[in-house]
Amino acid sequence: MTAVVKQKPKPRESMILTRIQEGSRSASDKSRNASLRLGIGDDTALWQPRAGYETILTCDWFLEGSHFLAGRHPPESVGWKCLARAVSDIAAMGGEPRCFLLSLALPPAKTGDWLRKFMKGLGRASRMLCCPIAGGDTTRRTDVLISVTVVGECRRGRAILRSGAQPGDAIFVTGCLGEAQRGLQLLQKSRKPPDLHDSRLRKHLYPEPQLAVGAWLARRQFATAMMDLSDGLSSDLPRLCRASGTGARVEEAKLLRVATRERTFKIEFDATQLALHGGDDYELLFTVANRNIPRIPARIGNMPVTRIGEITSGKRILLVRKNGSVEELKNCGWDPFR
Amino acid sequence: MTAVVKQKPKPRESMILTRIQEGSRSASDKSRNASLRLGIGDDTALWQPRAGYETILTCDWFLEGSHFLAGRHPPESVGWKCLARAVSDIAAMGGEPRCFLLSLALPPAKTGDWLRKFMKGLGRASRMLCCPIAGGDTTRRTDVLISVTVVGECRRGRAILRSGAQPGDAIFVTGCLGEAQRGLQLLQKSRKPPDLHDSRLRKHLYPEPQLAVGAWLARRQFATAMMDLSDGLSSDLPRLCRASGTGARVEEAKLLRVATRERTFKIEFDATQLALHGGDDYELLFTVANRNIPRIPARIGNMPVTRIGEITSGKRILLVRKNGSVEELKNCGWDPFR
Repeated sequence: MTAVVKQKPKPRESMILTRIQEGSRSASDKSRNASLRLGIGDDTALWQPRAGYETILTCDWFLEGSHFLAGRHPPESVGWKCLARAVSDIAAMGGEPRCFLLSLALPPAKTGDWLRKFMKGLGRASRMLCCPIAGGDTTRRTDVLISVTVVGECRRGRAILRSGAQPGDAIFVTGCLGEAQRGLQLLQKSRKPPDLHDSRLRKHLYPEPQLAVGAWLARRQFATAMMDLSDGLSSDLPRLCRASGTGARVEEAKLLRVATRERTFKIEFDATQLALHGGDDYELLFTVANRNIPRIPARIGNMPVTRIGEITSGKRILLVRKNGSVEELKNCGWDPFR
Repeated sequence: MTAVVKQKPKPRESMILTRIQEGSRSASDKSRNASLRLGIGDDTALWQPRAGYETILTCDWFLEGSHFLAGRHPPESVGWKCLARAVSDIAAMGGEPRCFLLSLALPPAKTGDWLRKFMKGLGRASRMLCCPIAGGDTTRRTDVLISVTVVGECRRGRAILRSGAQPGDAIFVTGCLGEAQRGLQLLQKSRKPPDLHDSRLRKHLYPEPQLAVGAWLARRQFATAMMDLSDGLSSDLPRLCRASGTGARVEEAKLLRVATRERTFKIEFDATQLALHGGDDYELLFTVANRNIPRIPARIGNMPVTRIGEITSGKRILLVRKNGSVEELKNCGWDPFR
């Protein structure tokens, strides 16, 4: 394309956004956000922050071909996941989502059935996460391009940053790492429509941000540092350590193993590799000072919480193998297409 | 592409965003935003809203091939304009910008010199508009993709919406409509680098959102409705009228004429067409109740303000020609490539 094209079609834009807004409002009163004074249809949205709270801001790309595959990912999943993964950053601060903005570019061929299903998934996520749409921008493009901005809140001074971990703190994770990556493997190997009874496929297609765990930790001020796991433990843990100026030691034996039932895929299946390098889990990684470790239960709400290692002085990120040998944990978020 | 690619390269991501953050902070103390407690480098940004204010939220696409041309638009202009046009929506509410989030996708070939120049333009806009970067997301892509979210504030209840116009209100615009479209014509016809002494080229490449005029009107509560002109008067005025449930009558004779010096382009040059249908001006369109019309000066700050027509009952958008004839104002934001 060499033309400077106006942001057409504008009438369709407001129509698309209004339909999404209706979708995100219809089912649940919980999703109604009294703070949202002006939504779609004006130049901007107007939003009333609460006294005593800080505003949390985050944005996330979700691009066809980069973050999802047009041929493999159902449009409902694209709609759900583009919001859920951005909300996961709010969970990682211990905050609550309040509203979101959607930048959406679509080819004309996807403005019919595809868009309807996309909106269904987005609307479900919006209601489940109590995070209504506040505004957005739509335009035409060859590929589907999505950028989601989420606005959240947390009590002033209570946000859990990446930078507070201290040597000696215990390292915890929620859930079972590597499940979403395993789900992606299954999605790509199978020619059938995805079976959503399979928890690994469900986790890849419809991840659920750990808002309840994040809020629980923020309320009690038990976590010294926290972030969400989007690119895999071996990529994300070094970021938390860098922000905190520490190293870390992770024990292979402590990692929950991704379940497998598929004999056919056995050769390529390594639960430890998936747990260390698999992306897209949107679980929480957090650290807890020694005195508070006994206060962390085995489950927070429904989520299993596992102690997988500890923060160390220095800068090295080490992996203790099951046989007791110690090696550097290489930063190589696992990617089946690399 | 058929691969699900991780959001690589992440180290480069934080590096790019940190460099932009430094660029947006270096020169002016005015740009420092004390409300921004946590910027780039954590999962999210943390931002402290002011008591007695509402938060304004807006996002805008700026895509290579759709909104700018890789071969014609200097990277400094791309950096400036992607922020300036999003901030224009804040001006349109009568608010002040406070910080922004940048979603940026780049091809590897543009991470060197192009990115440096882009950041220079973005940094200049950020400082001039007192709007520091709070966070963002970067990824790799064949084309340059940009989505900017701006967070602003206005005193509670003082935002100027599109929906408040009443029959009998006068219609005003700032500046001279059609200049930016003329600038685009010149940019495309010339093989030389753009001459920034030419105000029309400058307005196309480096538009300045009308923050001072917007704030002046909001403070005095003189405007009954307001929006910014991004797609051209003939596309945008119907939106304001639709939101207000009114019609409008615009007088051709009242429109300021875009200046022309180029004999060669005479045939295709029609100042009225440019003023009615030219996009990208980022001027303000606002309406004023009868009793307040005398209080609107010929200039607000440095900006000329022109009364171009009035709001009517009914739904029709009419144009009164210089010869007195009246016709329907067709919605056809002018586009040189259509």
